[in-house]
Amino acid sequence: MATILVTGASRGLGLELVKQLLDLPAATIDKVFAVTRSQPTPGLQELVNSSPDRLTNVMIEDLSDLSRATQASKDIEAVLQGRGLDILVNNAGTAVECPSGICSMTNQELLDVMNANVGSAHAVTTAFIPLLRKGGHRKVVNMSSALGSITRYDTYQWATTYSYKMSKAAMNMLTVQYALEFDKEDFTFIALSPGWIKTDLGGQNADIDLEVGGKAIRDIVLRSDRTDNGKFLCIRVPGWEGHKGMNQYDGLEMPW
Amino acid sequence: MATILVTGASRGLGLELVKQLLDLPAATIDKVFAVTRSQPTPGLQELVNSSPDRLTNVMIEDLSDLSRATQASKDIEAVLQGRGLDILVNNAGTAVECPSGICSMTNQELLDVMNANVGSAHAVTTAFIPLLRKGGHRKVVNMSSALGSITRYDTYQWATTYSYKMSKAAMNMLTVQYALEFDKEDFTFIALSPGWIKTDLGGQNADIDLEVGGKAIRDIVLRSDRTDNGKFLCIRVPGWEGHKGMNQYDGLEMPW
Repeated sequence: MATILVTGASRGLGLELVKQLLDLPAATIDKVFAVTRSQPTPGLQELVNSSPDRLTNVMIEDLSDLSRATQASKDIEAVLQGRGLDILVNNAGTAVECPSGICSMTNQELLDVMNANVGSAHAVTTAFIPLLRKGGHRKVVNMSSALGSITRYDTYQWATTYSYKMSKAAMNMLTVQYALEFDKEDFTFIALSPGWIKTDLGGQNADIDLEVGGKAIRDIVLRSDRTDNGKFLCIRVPGWEGHKGMNQYDGLEMPW
Repeated sequence: MATILVTGASRGLGLELVKQLLDLPAATIDKVFAVTRSQPTPGLQELVNSSPDRLTNVMIEDLSDLSRATQASKDIEAVLQGRGLDILVNNAGTAVECPSGICSMTNQELLDVMNANVGSAHAVTTAFIPLLRKGGHRKVVNMSSALGSITRYDTYQWATTYSYKMSKAAMNMLTVQYALEFDKEDFTFIALSPGWIKTDLGGQNADIDLEVGGKAIRDIVLRSDRTDNGKFLCIRVPGWEGHKGMNQYDGLEMPW
């Protein structure tokens, strides 16, 4: 039995991951906290209705607000009645396109995206460290992106989400620094690239069907262990392991 | 003859780079613009006094303010009387230590450091692109750091400048994106690691003497060319090429 918290659970990958987690037996995952910015979307509400004992929606308007994230951790601590949080998935994020080129990216946009993608993961992680210490897995998965790989920058020239790419490179650096600092306490921090999945954001030209992608994310979230601490991993999708196009689906390490 | 602009020229590496540039014959570098946030420091004023024709101090209070950086580019355009700016060195930066650990880094600090280190380089670059297009070199050097190498993260665990490391990883991603976008216009963008040099910031336990480091930075700023576009380079210091400790001084590429 494990407890897990997923941010950005209103739609897309976050919602699908919550769904796939609930599809597992309660003996594997018995408590899921789905964090949303506002009232649950119909998709999430449906899941709450069908699994009211296993799924709890937690609203945090601004994830980058440490005091608010800390309050949420105290609320969740009360729900858990002495148990800890086993796994934290920092999935919430945003992206802004600048089709006119990099010079049209404003610094305000850069800072907003940095705060939403990196500041949020940082505040939520800091807020939940005490509850994660009480858990058995002590695992934090930061949802990164292949677009955050500086090594592969020329692969993604077509993507004009400049600030998003910079935020994911910064998030990768955040991840390894947490990995170093909490290594002695047996934590596992990983940065995860989900590849290109068919969501509203990813579009229908993406590589991987949503359900398949959600299961692959679930697998790596659950299977990664201490030997993965500080790594930048991609999901593993059967049949796509040899894919050498835009993305990587072999479950192995990505280049920074 | 070349024209060059260096930000963060009040002290440290920026001031030393300006000094080393002026030590070259005017036939090589005939015009240096030293950008400072406020009134020139005594060290810079001394250089201005001895080379009033070749060195101009330009004050920009907030480098991340695109409108102010654009105004400065227009002022400099007037000084250059039809010539362009050949080389831009985005050297200004800041660092904050968090000796209590990564959880003590506030998001405000993260955003402030990101803005000072990355937002400034972005705004200045955007503002000076038109003047760089008129120049012969079309070169932009972004001062990065070995601490921005995610690959080498465990080498720098001792450094508690978490937000600085994240900002340099983000700056590296900024650099490669500019490199891609302006490749067709024959620009060269590089991220440069100066290693660990004896400045007020670097301390006296650092590896490299200030004058030696300043010359090595000057060398790579002047010698790098189109084949280096999009690279993360370190300085080359004779006698230190085989140094495999904390830093790298062989003038070759650094891992992202």
